[in-house]
Amino acid sequence: MTVQIQATIITIGDELLIGQVIDTNSAFIAQKLNSIGVSVHQRIAVGDDTQSITNALDTAIQKSKIVIITGGLGPTADDITKPLLNSYFGGKMIVDQPSLDHITYIFEQIHKRPMIERNRKQAEVPDVCEVLFNQSGTAPGMLFKKNESYIFSLPGVPFEMQWLINEKVIPIILDSFNLGVIAHRTLLTAGVGESFLAESIQAFETNLPETIKLAYLPSYGMVRLRLTGKSNDAASLNSQLDSLFESLKGYVNEHLVSDKDGPLEMVVGSLLKAHNQTVSTAESCTGGYIGHLLSKHAGSSSFFTGSLVSYDNRIKTEFLDVPTSILQTVGAVSKEAVEQMAVSIRTKMKTDYGISVSGIMGPSGQTDEKPLGMVWIGVANKEKVVSKVFYLRFDRQKNIEVTANLAINLLRLLIINKI
Amino acid sequence: MTVQIQATIITIGDELLIGQVIDTNSAFIAQKLNSIGVSVHQRIAVGDDTQSITNALDTAIQKSKIVIITGGLGPTADDITKPLLNSYFGGKMIVDQPSLDHITYIFEQIHKRPMIERNRKQAEVPDVCEVLFNQSGTAPGMLFKKNESYIFSLPGVPFEMQWLINEKVIPIILDSFNLGVIAHRTLLTAGVGESFLAESIQAFETNLPETIKLAYLPSYGMVRLRLTGKSNDAASLNSQLDSLFESLKGYVNEHLVSDKDGPLEMVVGSLLKAHNQTVSTAESCTGGYIGHLLSKHAGSSSFFTGSLVSYDNRIKTEFLDVPTSILQTVGAVSKEAVEQMAVSIRTKMKTDYGISVSGIMGPSGQTDEKPLGMVWIGVANKEKVVSKVFYLRFDRQKNIEVTANLAINLLRLLIINKI
Repeated sequence: MTVQIQATIITIGDELLIGQVIDTNSAFIAQKLNSIGVSVHQRIAVGDDTQSITNALDTAIQKSKIVIITGGLGPTADDITKPLLNSYFGGKMIVDQPSLDHITYIFEQIHKRPMIERNRKQAEVPDVCEVLFNQSGTAPGMLFKKNESYIFSLPGVPFEMQWLINEKVIPIILDSFNLGVIAHRTLLTAGVGESFLAESIQAFETNLPETIKLAYLPSYGMVRLRLTGKSNDAASLNSQLDSLFESLKGYVNEHLVSDKDGPLEMVVGSLLKAHNQTVSTAESCTGGYIGHLLSKHAGSSSFFTGSLVSYDNRIKTEFLDVPTSILQTVGAVSKEAVEQMAVSIRTKMKTDYGISVSGIMGPSGQTDEKPLGMVWIGVANKEKVVSKVFYLRFDRQKNIEVTANLAINLLRLLIINKI
Repeated sequence: MTVQIQATIITIGDELLIGQVIDTNSAFIAQKLNSIGVSVHQRIAVGDDTQSITNALDTAIQKSKIVIITGGLGPTADDITKPLLNSYFGGKMIVDQPSLDHITYIFEQIHKRPMIERNRKQAEVPDVCEVLFNQSGTAPGMLFKKNESYIFSLPGVPFEMQWLINEKVIPIILDSFNLGVIAHRTLLTAGVGESFLAESIQAFETNLPETIKLAYLPSYGMVRLRLTGKSNDAASLNSQLDSLFESLKGYVNEHLVSDKDGPLEMVVGSLLKAHNQTVSTAESCTGGYIGHLLSKHAGSSSFFTGSLVSYDNRIKTEFLDVPTSILQTVGAVSKEAVEQMAVSIRTKMKTDYGISVSGIMGPSGQTDEKPLGMVWIGVANKEKVVSKVFYLRFDRQKNIEVTANLAINLLRLLIINKI
């Protein structure tokens, strides 16, 4: 008989409380814990302050069998976590030789810089912890045990934290706890708002067993739907989820983009790879963001050829053959301009598909006819060019992100012959 | 005499606990509160679960005069926050007519879709709250008062939350509390690691008054330093911070990039604007990300002309005149390739400066001579072209982000004549 194991994530750092840094570590840790059946009960962010950290630890240990702390282990004086943990768990500081050897190696062989006392101090750990050797950096992780709880302390640098979670923390948890199973099924929809989606799957939602939860996750103008179940019996949980997921896909119907839990650009990348086809982009208002999305995942060089960012209108004419007459009459944010851009980039870069965008991302640049958030998107293949206009109402950054996703989705519709 | 007012931020949503969504709302809210002298004591993320939300509320109200709750107000069945707040504060649900009128307007005039019962329900609020009219969306904000604490409940959609914070929450807090002053001074450094920086400003740090805090914030291969002080006397606090900040700049010396708290691309954008100059980019491994950074802030069209993303080597030859002989001998990740790319893009797009990058971002593609993370960066102006090689050791996404920042910093050094 398994017990549901709960975890608390504590992130430490004044930078989190004044909002200078966005906490991406918690999301990573939560995903990893969930994937092995540990549910995260709570996430707490506190400053570099002894009392706040102590209170958070007290609460976390009382409520959770697993506590993951990140941050506060750097070499500088504003990092107070290690001495605090040392006194909290009643230890004394000793040098961990493998960590010291590794830090020495990093400085002498990689940085080729002299090591200073601050770096050496990173090898010191409380003698009451189990050291989690950090191959990816200079701050070792630590594991403390108290009242049947496991308390992991990890550096806040995302790259190092991720390495320690994957290589040390997850294997230790799997070894030490008898975990239940948690499983998810996620699908991505496009072209329909959250409330209309809710309306169209109401019958499904009403009949959902109590043990299965449905969540709506809005995402760049699309909506993700996620089913989650917990059980001790992996086989029966998975078969129950599979059957409910099939039913949900039926309800969602033509709005379904993908039944995998990945970003849209990976869905489209897979489609292109499967057909051995390529794409190039001609971007104005997105400034290169569509190219970035298409190339940010490994393996994208097999389908993404390149982009021409024509931020200045002169570049639209000189590189993409948009006639100055179009720019002077209907303007750069027009059906005519994006259709020419999509056709030109496809031809010039010799790709199967071309994507183009031109719009007004804000906070200024609007006219009476062309409001803030107006964006034209074009997609072309050998046979045809299709364009659509959208009216977005977010801020500049979000308008850019939503535009890029709408453009990639329009390409998807062209690939699968739905436009 | 002012009292230090403390706030707790509670974010609600299962998606935060399973890590499917990164919490950007908390950082925004924390920044805004800090800017008016409210210090955030703690941030808590809980799931869509009555007991967890109630516990978080109990704790927050006990410790903080201001509580900001985001999330859980959507039109779908997984959002339980509003009924919970209604019963927590002992109210009954009533329709808020201005909100209903606004929702009706949005559906009829903007979406041009029929309004359904779920949308209408968004206009219902507990009769014990003060309604914060939400001009930016369909879910009204709410203000509850209990034991001298102000509890604000806001929708989780970033765009709507931001509007309500700026237009409603901040003005109400400024009106209702006698706030102290909190002030920051932030500078950006490049070319030096966190521990070496700490070593070189040790004397400064040791002599810092107890009331002033110094924080190290690593940021894409650079380090930000922030001084923070709190006081009841704005004038004396600002003069103290100004004087300390001048001293800190002296210690940091040639590593100083900017004494403003903005991203690097804005520093470089301001330099270009001040000289009335333009830049274009020729990107390989960054896939358009440098163009995205240069164009993501308003006003960038005065200095950013465009980009050519040559992800496929063929594009490097056809569009950027990199000879196939270079690609076949030293390869695309080479001094020769990036110098040609920087010169070509500058000439072809007729800009004052050209930036180029070519590297191996991972997780594969390395050779014996060219390890993962190796990246060549070039910058050119009319007189010369300069290139540098870097060896990064992050994951693919972070390598792309760091490369873009290193490239923009290299341009900065060329503009100010330091390379």
